[in-house]
Amino acid sequence: MASGRFYLFCMVLGSLGSMCILFTTYWMQYWRGGFAWDGSVHMFNWHPVLMVSGMVVLYGAASLVYRLPLSWVGPKLPWKILHAALHLLAFTLTVMGLVAVFQFHNHSKITHLYSLHSWLGITTVIFFACQWSLGFAIFLLPWASQWLRSLLKPVHVYFGACILSLSITSVISGINEKLFFVLKNVTMPYSSLPSEAVFANSTGLLVVAFGLLVLYVLLASPWKRPDPGALTDRQPLLHDRE
Amino acid sequence: MASGRFYLFCMVLGSLGSMCILFTTYWMQYWRGGFAWDGSVHMFNWHPVLMVSGMVVLYGAASLVYRLPLSWVGPKLPWKILHAALHLLAFTLTVMGLVAVFQFHNHSKITHLYSLHSWLGITTVIFFACQWSLGFAIFLLPWASQWLRSLLKPVHVYFGACILSLSITSVISGINEKLFFVLKNVTMPYSSLPSEAVFANSTGLLVVAFGLLVLYVLLASPWKRPDPGALTDRQPLLHDRE
Repeated sequence: MASGRFYLFCMVLGSLGSMCILFTTYWMQYWRGGFAWDGSVHMFNWHPVLMVSGMVVLYGAASLVYRLPLSWVGPKLPWKILHAALHLLAFTLTVMGLVAVFQFHNHSKITHLYSLHSWLGITTVIFFACQWSLGFAIFLLPWASQWLRSLLKPVHVYFGACILSLSITSVISGINEKLFFVLKNVTMPYSSLPSEAVFANSTGLLVVAFGLLVLYVLLASPWKRPDPGALTDRQPLLHDRE
Repeated sequence: MASGRFYLFCMVLGSLGSMCILFTTYWMQYWRGGFAWDGSVHMFNWHPVLMVSGMVVLYGAASLVYRLPLSWVGPKLPWKILHAALHLLAFTLTVMGLVAVFQFHNHSKITHLYSLHSWLGITTVIFFACQWSLGFAIFLLPWASQWLRSLLKPVHVYFGACILSLSITSVISGINEKLFFVLKNVTMPYSSLPSEAVFANSTGLLVVAFGLLVLYVLLASPWKRPDPGALTDRQPLLHDRE
């Protein structure tokens, strides 16, 4: 029953995540002239699509691997490998998203990394790289003791959730910034809410909704790998004490 | 010892929170011409100061009332009243911050609520109003059963953390947007990183650092009111099971 509800939740999350990617792609294709990999503004258009796909949707999915009831029984190692591999794929998409915007800036002689969006975004990517490397070294390689893993696990979960929150913040400030850049036409400015603005604003809210649901499943839901030593096996992380 | 570390953490949080407010105020005073309450752009300048003070700093402080070791002994009601009162004060500052921007828009004939920053910001304020009202009705008024309170408490904590995350996202997109609005001078654009841009970008990162530390204390730290029924009394919320 609980597992059934989890998979229902997964379907909602899967649909929301797919919509985030599809909406961002449609925005870039329909209003911003589509895609290329040639340093032009059409290369920039890969930036939002790859960042939303990598830093938000795939990152979110990769974070929830241990919430799958399938992962609660049997050896944990295959699930750890899946968790690390999906995050590595998310990181690869993220780096490609950065290449897209840096090459566009180089090509158009635009300064790199001046806006708050870019400062926060690059900080988030650096945090992601540190989190993945430390996670790999401590939780996947065999040298770390059980004591060290237990000590660092809540920090790993907390920091993982922080990175997702910062990714969403970067995406929102990025969409906002892009709309101010491109909707400057005096007869049809951003403030007149043309269809592109309504569509892209809605895409931003979809990304927020997806991220908050992922954080719910990650931090507050009762779907967890049961602890063999626990007296109760379905206690959510955020179950505060009265 | 643990309590000593908590108060050390509180000092760091207090300093960071004060710096967020002081930096925002200094930005508006030194580079944006200061404050007034007359519908002009100087009235707008209250908007970032009041939102950072209300939706981030005071909201964050109010969220951590039950993490104070002082609150762990004796009756809970006075702490509940303090928690609700501080959040009500945070909400009042927030509403004043909204009045500042709406009156400025009215005065300058600027459309309300078109940017993604404003869509997300107003959604966050509506969530805050719902959270406060439901929290007041369920956790402060005496009618709700212990069962209902226990059921809704993790949702209240999760939703409270979401609202803080969304506030930070709104603040970051707002600072980014404001800098693109005002640093348009051809000889000194935002992209040339004049001192105002460096200062305001840094203020944004300070707000992020403050928010992440509050979320750590709220969700992942071991500082919690001990549950009289618990076998262990210092288990952090984010302590995942191996």
